[in-house]
Amino acid sequence: MARTAGSHSEITGPRVLQAALTLFARHGFAAVSMRQIAAEVGVQAGALYNYTPDKQTLLFDLMRTHMEGLLEAWEAEKSDGDATERLRRFTRFHITYHLERPDEVFISYMELRNLTPENFREIEALRRKYETELEKILRDGLAEGVFNVPDPRVVTMAVIAMVTGVTTWYRTAGRLSVEAVQDIYWQMVQRAVSA
Amino acid sequence: MARTAGSHSEITGPRVLQAALTLFARHGFAAVSMRQIAAEVGVQAGALYNYTPDKQTLLFDLMRTHMEGLLEAWEAEKSDGDATERLRRFTRFHITYHLERPDEVFISYMELRNLTPENFREIEALRRKYETELEKILRDGLAEGVFNVPDPRVVTMAVIAMVTGVTTWYRTAGRLSVEAVQDIYWQMVQRAVSA
Repeated sequence: MARTAGSHSEITGPRVLQAALTLFARHGFAAVSMRQIAAEVGVQAGALYNYTPDKQTLLFDLMRTHMEGLLEAWEAEKSDGDATERLRRFTRFHITYHLERPDEVFISYMELRNLTPENFREIEALRRKYETELEKILRDGLAEGVFNVPDPRVVTMAVIAMVTGVTTWYRTAGRLSVEAVQDIYWQMVQRAVSA
Repeated sequence: MARTAGSHSEITGPRVLQAALTLFARHGFAAVSMRQIAAEVGVQAGALYNYTPDKQTLLFDLMRTHMEGLLEAWEAEKSDGDATERLRRFTRFHITYHLERPDEVFISYMELRNLTPENFREIEALRRKYETELEKILRDGLAEGVFNVPDPRVVTMAVIAMVTGVTTWYRTAGRLSVEAVQDIYWQMVQRAVSA
């Protein structure tokens, strides 16, 4: 029998993840109990185990969903073209995507220490896959002769740290639009890697 | 009467801070109890209150000590000279200083949420003071005509995020020396801001 749209688990599953995200971001993974997550969702603590076996799985699901969403969104956004145009797209995309998800970004960096070794390896592989997208653009630009990057791997890490850092200081109500911030960062990224 | 060198509080104070730093970095501030900190130091839980009134004060002391140490070390390191030379010094200094203190860097970014509003303001003021050191170099380079930075405040945040990011990926046993990493980052920073 087909599942009814809006069935219990379809509605509650995302709400459980959202509650876990909010609480982990506010208090830290180790300080949050399954009981608190249940209270935030508005279900009994026991009912939570219909949706997830444990807190570790919730953390892992949050990080995996974030990284898979990032990779999918980039697949949809990226284009062919020369390395400079691809780098411009990457820079702008990365800023927008991360600015819209401050809690996910915070969790993804800060709670790596709380993943089991196996889960950590899986998240690291997804992160590495995303980083490799940028590294490939840098290597292609090097081959085209338009970039001068002494060490594409290190430059990849530097560019990602720089653009992700926007999430730590940008405020929607501040003096700059997202577009203005993207322009400033793109100018810096382009000059930092150009031949 | 002069205090005896190596007296109880002189030895235990730093040990309490070190234990708190280690435990906060490993588990997160909210998940660590004063009892755990006491156990890490090797004293009774009650004895801890001879050194600190509460856990919030420990967190604040750790962050304040870190920021004040950073500002003092930069005062000792910085030099006169043209803006390019000062920026080069800042970049190399920032990388070395932060690479040597991964736990302090981690705590300083991730536990801001757990400071009381008053303590948060004080830490933010110290951080702002440090950022202003870089912003001033950028503004001076702009005045000298050697830099082209569309927005010195935003470029300051971008450069600091980029160079601090080294702490997330650099491994002492890896393929690159600290000096090699400094060279790569300095090349990127210089080109990103040069006229």
